[in-house]
Amino acid sequence: MNTLGNKLRVTVFGQSHAPAIGCVIDGLPAGFAPDMERLAAFMARRAPGQNAWSTNRRESDAPEVLSGLVDGKTCGAPVSAVIRNSGQHSSDYSGLKRTPRPSHADYTALIKYGENYDIRGGGQFSGRLTAPLCLAGAFALQILEQKGITVAAHIGKIADVVDAPPDFAQVSREELTALLARPFPVFQEDSGVKMRQAIEKARMDCDSVGGVVRCFAVGLPAGIGEPMFGGVENRLAAALFGIPAVRGVSFGTGFAAAGMRGSEHNDPFAVEDGKITVRTNHAGGVLGGITSGLPLVVNAAFKPTASIAKEQDTVDLQTRANTRITIHGRHDPCIVPRAVPVVEAVTALTLLDMIMED
Amino acid sequence: MNTLGNKLRVTVFGQSHAPAIGCVIDGLPAGFAPDMERLAAFMARRAPGQNAWSTNRRESDAPEVLSGLVDGKTCGAPVSAVIRNSGQHSSDYSGLKRTPRPSHADYTALIKYGENYDIRGGGQFSGRLTAPLCLAGAFALQILEQKGITVAAHIGKIADVVDAPPDFAQVSREELTALLARPFPVFQEDSGVKMRQAIEKARMDCDSVGGVVRCFAVGLPAGIGEPMFGGVENRLAAALFGIPAVRGVSFGTGFAAAGMRGSEHNDPFAVEDGKITVRTNHAGGVLGGITSGLPLVVNAAFKPTASIAKEQDTVDLQTRANTRITIHGRHDPCIVPRAVPVVEAVTALTLLDMIMED
Amino acid sequence: MNTLGNKLRVTVFGQSHAPAIGCVIDGLPAGFAPDMERLAAFMARRAPGQNAWSTNRRESDAPEVLSGLVDGKTCGAPVSAVIRNSGQHSSDYSGLKRTPRPSHADYTALIKYGENYDIRGGGQFSGRLTAPLCLAGAFALQILEQKGITVAAHIGKIADVVDAPPDFAQVSREELTALLARPFPVFQEDSGVKMRQAIEKARMDCDSVGGVVRCFAVGLPAGIGEPMFGGVENRLAAALFGIPAVRGVSFGTGFAAAGMRGSEHNDPFAVEDGKITVRTNHAGGVLGGITSGLPLVVNAAFKPTASIAKEQDTVDLQTRANTRITIHGRHDPCIVPRAVPVVEAVTALTLLDMIMED
Amino acid sequence: MNTLGNKLRVTVFGQSHAPAIGCVIDGLPAGFAPDMERLAAFMARRAPGQNAWSTNRRESDAPEVLSGLVDGKTCGAPVSAVIRNSGQHSSDYSGLKRTPRPSHADYTALIKYGENYDIRGGGQFSGRLTAPLCLAGAFALQILEQKGITVAAHIGKIADVVDAPPDFAQVSREELTALLARPFPVFQEDSGVKMRQAIEKARMDCDSVGGVVRCFAVGLPAGIGEPMFGGVENRLAAALFGIPAVRGVSFGTGFAAAGMRGSEHNDPFAVEDGKITVRTNHAGGVLGGITSGLPLVVNAAFKPTASIAKEQDTVDLQTRANTRITIHGRHDPCIVPRAVPVVEAVTALTLLDMIMED
Repeated sequence: MNTLGNKLRVTVFGQSHAPAIGCVIDGLPAGFAPDMERLAAFMARRAPGQNAWSTNRRESDAPEVLSGLVDGKTCGAPVSAVIRNSGQHSSDYSGLKRTPRPSHADYTALIKYGENYDIRGGGQFSGRLTAPLCLAGAFALQILEQKGITVAAHIGKIADVVDAPPDFAQVSREELTALLARPFPVFQEDSGVKMRQAIEKARMDCDSVGGVVRCFAVGLPAGIGEPMFGGVENRLAAALFGIPAVRGVSFGTGFAAAGMRGSEHNDPFAVEDGKITVRTNHAGGVLGGITSGLPLVVNAAFKPTASIAKEQDTVDLQTRANTRITIHGRHDPCIVPRAVPVVEAVTALTLLDMIMED
Repeated sequence: MNTLGNKLRVTVFGQSHAPAIGCVIDGLPAGFAPDMERLAAFMARRAPGQNAWSTNRRESDAPEVLSGLVDGKTCGAPVSAVIRNSGQHSSDYSGLKRTPRPSHADYTALIKYGENYDIRGGGQFSGRLTAPLCLAGAFALQILEQKGITVAAHIGKIADVVDAPPDFAQVSREELTALLARPFPVFQEDSGVKMRQAIEKARMDCDSVGGVVRCFAVGLPAGIGEPMFGGVENRLAAALFGIPAVRGVSFGTGFAAAGMRGSEHNDPFAVEDGKITVRTNHAGGVLGGITSGLPLVVNAAFKPTASIAKEQDTVDLQTRANTRITIHGRHDPCIVPRAVPVVEAVTALTLLDMIMED
Repeated sequence: MNTLGNKLRVTVFGQSHAPAIGCVIDGLPAGFAPDMERLAAFMARRAPGQNAWSTNRRESDAPEVLSGLVDGKTCGAPVSAVIRNSGQHSSDYSGLKRTPRPSHADYTALIKYGENYDIRGGGQFSGRLTAPLCLAGAFALQILEQKGITVAAHIGKIADVVDAPPDFAQVSREELTALLARPFPVFQEDSGVKMRQAIEKARMDCDSVGGVVRCFAVGLPAGIGEPMFGGVENRLAAALFGIPAVRGVSFGTGFAAAGMRGSEHNDPFAVEDGKITVRTNHAGGVLGGITSGLPLVVNAAFKPTASIAKEQDTVDLQTRANTRITIHGRHDPCIVPRAVPVVEAVTALTLLDMIMED
Repeated sequence: MNTLGNKLRVTVFGQSHAPAIGCVIDGLPAGFAPDMERLAAFMARRAPGQNAWSTNRRESDAPEVLSGLVDGKTCGAPVSAVIRNSGQHSSDYSGLKRTPRPSHADYTALIKYGENYDIRGGGQFSGRLTAPLCLAGAFALQILEQKGITVAAHIGKIADVVDAPPDFAQVSREELTALLARPFPVFQEDSGVKMRQAIEKARMDCDSVGGVVRCFAVGLPAGIGEPMFGGVENRLAAALFGIPAVRGVSFGTGFAAAGMRGSEHNDPFAVEDGKITVRTNHAGGVLGGITSGLPLVVNAAFKPTASIAKEQDTVDLQTRANTRITIHGRHDPCIVPRAVPVVEAVTALTLLDMIMED
């Protein structure tokens, strides 16, 4: 369903072309004063239409907080907020119920909900629903920060361009803070240039590209997470697959671990300045589902945007004949840059929830 | 925690060297008569000591069913079963509380549970706890089969050896049934030979190797799964990360999708014999968290076994000095072959739960 | 927390004096066309200021639906709705943080949330939060009705005046429909007259009175409910205690069963027109947590309104001295008549959730 | 289902005549050393056959702990325990599938589970399943005690005999400790005598009687409980209705509050020795779902045992004709005395869970 979390619980609602989208955040500690300017700045990182590498569709994402804040502070009641939808071109989407877009949730949603499914703008499966997730995540990020925990993600890969991250065992708060300040969040500037070129090339080709977002959390206490099905991996994976277009979630070295030997993948413990640390951090900060206190590293693979301008094969559900479709509307040739704050938001919400449960 | 599922709920208990391990399976439909011989055969696929490529440690994994079955049929009450532990060499594990094994849950468990943590044989984090998961999964697999759904996994990769799967859009019940009958579950015999060589080589080197298990489900109805956080991906990922050593979970083409273009990754719909199908199935049978009715494809990456015979660097938690450790005991140089039925079990439990919820 | 249900899930938000209150209803079947006029009529039964026996404070409870409905039908996405707050007299509530009102949640909320608790109008503990519950319940009631299930409650008791219900084994849809049409929902008109007199007398005395609401559901299928902690009683009780001022929940003959003998309380089965029924229905339609198909009978005891005009003893939390308090503002001398639709709403939501889970 | 709790989670399994019953307790803090003698003494209070006022059927309820304890201390892994069933007279129950016992779960269980339902000895609905609940509760009670919280219940009523409790605002740990030491837990000795006479009279009449168990918890911290559906009342009620034969749950003055005026029912705050307290405690220690720090008072109404020796009317489900039934087997003429520790156990498990969540 549309609810994430146990003790800190976010419920997301809305469709792309409904009157509004929004969320309810239940369980925030009372007395927290969110910095609303930083919240707006965080949400702006996800907003479209702000730069060359995303769709030129604009959203007015100013949320109205309806409850839960008194004099700028949380009061213990759920924080609820709505973001009005406006400026949608619903006519763009007519006919899609008959000829489903390849690799889009349209098709399965039509099977599940039937004729009444709200297909306009991708309905409840629209990437627009990640705006309230970012709103909720902004609260969690600020609270984590007060606890000395920094969460930040970089674009690990777009098309075949890779951005090399810092050593997982050494990644520092300073590096993450610097990363958060960059408009295009990569560690190596030239990777960013090549990634934007790859996106631009895909756009020119009426096509799209995918990528990987890698998220770090430093400052996490050791011992967070429950065994077997209650571990950090279980919880983060369940949450991150809630972001549209995510196709894989891994931790630390991830799928590459499958090709490694134990002697290579094992992270030797070491004492440094009297503190226990590791020489490498292939584990990504989690052992047996429980945090080790080392930097948490989680990777999310995003598929290329399904809505491409190129003509594609599909079927006519009415005549049950093969046909072709050209998708109109304004779509990102690569969702990955805008997905970075969404991954940070969902990671922060899940980590804060688990810390509060502990 | 140690419970999986909503409507079909499995609770696992035990430690490697406790008197017993076991599980409680709540929510099974009444009147189901499990084939106990097939259940035993399924559990035997996971059991150690049966062939060259696994540890020579033997388990007597005959479960005793304590409740829930009357005259061989489920009666509506929870099915509970225990498997006695015996033949453990607890002395092998003395000293580990002081010098944690690299990349093992020992370290984080000691932080979480303190001195009282049962470290013998990996305690509650031992791979032995997957035996009750297989027991529960055997029920789910048989029930799914009665519904026309077949779940089977192959070894997709060990070390750098890959087993090419059938076309994701075309994989058939017959191919899966044949796969299930093989002692070493790969589609291409020569891949299996090379994989076993890689395992043997790692053992000779006192080392270990990782791999990937790829699980298929054919015959699934379309429309299973809820949006956002209730999708098939969220639920399967949360469940599969409960298996020790899993480092990544992906669907269909998975992380490779990150490097693809939309025109390449999108699965064009097509009409075949009057039925709607797809030309490719990069999506792995799930769109927007909801099944499309096509073969489900889920991949789980396993790290190399952390317990290797080679001497390794670690720390002495008491003196807080660097030291070295040599791990004794009998450990699989590659957990992947024995993990195959575990992945099938967990996938089946989750899919059946979601079907029952629908 | 502020969420009710598993498969049908209602999240309530807002405080009495926040910009708005509202709810998110997740899990409604797609394609349901709510009758919005009947929904408004149902919500009006709860609204204050409409008649002699409730507070003369008025609410404008017209909800704005923000999502989930397209062309008047549910589309599968969560239905969200907000009700703006207006016309509150927040000044009435100044000083309450220092001198807590006896038997009011003010005191415990201050302990839990501290200085930041929104005490105006009872904050998130205000009876006003039952408006969104009624909104959600109106959806559930209409869907249940389509399934042939009628839910209706009467005022079983106010002060010492009792309204005798029909025979629990015989209560019919027709009786319930007639009950629903009455402005003051009692079976016996003279009980209603005496109840209103008791309320009026309490008001004259600057005091308040409590009562009992008894809710019936006829047409329920047999077999709904899970054993032990998943039964109809567990679920309904957990839900009904979410209504402010509820102090007890019982089923059928309820607490009176404690004084009865088995031979008197047992409901003998009987065959009538070839159908199995019972001669009495002390059980209230539930045995072992599972519906029997007979009328469901659930009773909820409401305490007298805590906010009375009479001067009362309390303490000054700042000086830690005894003091006295006179509560201003407009409060119902008896909440019970307005609680009737709330009990129906919560009962309907829970029953529909359980039916959908089955 | 058969699982109780969130952070402390108890899963109960077994049927009356299965090989065993038992439970899994997940979430206990590591390092707790249960006093197994006191645990056995606590379980003995529930066991049948020990005195004149209960059935002469004997159980050997010695549990075997299978996991979770190492050297007598919890290790962080789930504690699991089984109690073997033996000495059942299964033949007593033959024929019951055809002629259901009035007011017994047999009937609804047959509808739900069909022919395969294990009807022997009441199957999974048997009061015998409260033995593992007591086992789990014994852990919780001892942990609460270490936190300075005492939980104890008295028999508030049997038939028409009432045992007057101490002032709810003043009840002390000493009174509760004394209560726990009594074989027949009442505050007034003469009430106990009359209650036992009422039970004996019912037995002589081949009949049964019901009653009320009232449970106290003193020493609870203020501020435990979440608003609306997460309150102490919601959680305790949901849990207590899991005990067979419970027909109502109320707090403090309970249903009697319905007949009171606000000025009478409100609990005036007062300062005593510099501490804030109340003059009365009609609320039973909970306001708005949140503990006030005052004694918690919860009442559970038990119906008279459904299985009585007297001949009763019922139906033949096969011929669909009216018939009569005489129930054989050994049944308590009053379940209430043996239910006292069960109510304590379930209350303790729920309170500890809520404290751990806080």
